[in-house]
Amino acid sequence: MNQHTVKAYGDELNQITAEVARMGGLAEAQVADAIDSVARRDIALARAVVERDLKLDALHRDIEKKAIRLIALRQPVASDLRRTLGAMKIATDLERTGDLAKNIAKRALILAEGEPMQPLTRSIERMGRLVSTRLRDVLDAYTASELDRAVAVWQTDDEVDEHYNALFRELLTYMMGDPRTIGACTHLLFMAKNLERIGDHATNIAETVHYEITGDDIVGERPRAQPTAEDSDPTPNLSTPHLPTH
Amino acid sequence: MNQHTVKAYGDELNQITAEVARMGGLAEAQVADAIDSVARRDIALARAVVERDLKLDALHRDIEKKAIRLIALRQPVASDLRRTLGAMKIATDLERTGDLAKNIAKRALILAEGEPMQPLTRSIERMGRLVSTRLRDVLDAYTASELDRAVAVWQTDDEVDEHYNALFRELLTYMMGDPRTIGACTHLLFMAKNLERIGDHATNIAETVHYEITGDDIVGERPRAQPTAEDSDPTPNLSTPHLPTH
Repeated sequence: MNQHTVKAYGDELNQITAEVARMGGLAEAQVADAIDSVARRDIALARAVVERDLKLDALHRDIEKKAIRLIALRQPVASDLRRTLGAMKIATDLERTGDLAKNIAKRALILAEGEPMQPLTRSIERMGRLVSTRLRDVLDAYTASELDRAVAVWQTDDEVDEHYNALFRELLTYMMGDPRTIGACTHLLFMAKNLERIGDHATNIAETVHYEITGDDIVGERPRAQPTAEDSDPTPNLSTPHLPTH
Repeated sequence: MNQHTVKAYGDELNQITAEVARMGGLAEAQVADAIDSVARRDIALARAVVERDLKLDALHRDIEKKAIRLIALRQPVASDLRRTLGAMKIATDLERTGDLAKNIAKRALILAEGEPMQPLTRSIERMGRLVSTRLRDVLDAYTASELDRAVAVWQTDDEVDEHYNALFRELLTYMMGDPRTIGACTHLLFMAKNLERIGDHATNIAETVHYEITGDDIVGERPRAQPTAEDSDPTPNLSTPHLPTH
């Protein structure tokens, strides 16, 4: 392998990493805009989120193709292989994150047709901000290869669940208090669920960053026994929630 | 590379494929048992599903480790590389499928504490059977490398959405008719959503099988514009469903 080949190989890997970082920036913006579109009942913004999702899908396909090509032609080993496989994994998490943001935006469009649902949408906004922060932090950790930062995101995984549980209770109470809101509340319920899942994708990305940097699974150090998305579903028992007091 | 090395390499790849097939069998059983536990209000079975999920997680980790090891040490190319990367992808889909089945079982445990919810649970059962069939078909396609069968699963993707939409309407109608059922119906709603997502994982697996066999993406031939899980979310506008007539 001559100098030229070595250089091109490093370039290829850097290009893949840069594309993942770009996907990260886009996914972050999609989540923030989706939440804004709910909070402000902004139809144009919601539509923009739905449309822009195509860009994330295209980047995902491109990253996957380039990564497979790199593995096949360059046969990377050790940390280069981890970086390549990590890029594929993170791109998948970001593509799903984009799908979830798009789904929130679609529901925002439906909710905008009905009565405003404050303070419920404010609760969604708060949970959205928490999830956005986690996503931003883990993407910062990825681009800067900062292990501590990735581990910090991973360790605070349960904050999102707490928000989700509280919001879940709030929504059920609201529906029971006024059954006419059931349709709208169901959309808010799925928005909350989507945010929880975006939080799980941030956790997945933290695990991938850890693996890329150290070569080891973060599994085992985790505060909770359960490692993936649906495992963390809180499934609170809400057969008898309190009715609203106001 | 001598004859011995070549043999060991093929063995390693076959072992990975066999483990994925085994994960497939387990995931299939988990989905079927989770649905049975809802239909029969079977607490022991629901608990068994929750416990057995650990096995799927362990297999997933093992497959990922073996696949990375194979790529690093054996540097497979062409169809061997596709088989290896495909195994990793399918194992991830099966692990998520297991998580979703486990989540259904957890909700079954909660529902078993309350009043029976027929005919709603019968609708869940019907949707569950459809999704199970799709999962079985795509796993058959995987183990037999049958392209047509994988494409057939992929093309009938919208059947699950139709079931989901009908069930969604049924649940909202039920909740509005009797707000005391909102808590239980919310669990059923998430069960339906989980089944829809399991259906999406079956579609993902069909795409991976297509890629493994042909080396090409199935994308572009798809009947719908939208390729992944949350994209397919029907988000029906149900602000004014019909009230139950019975």
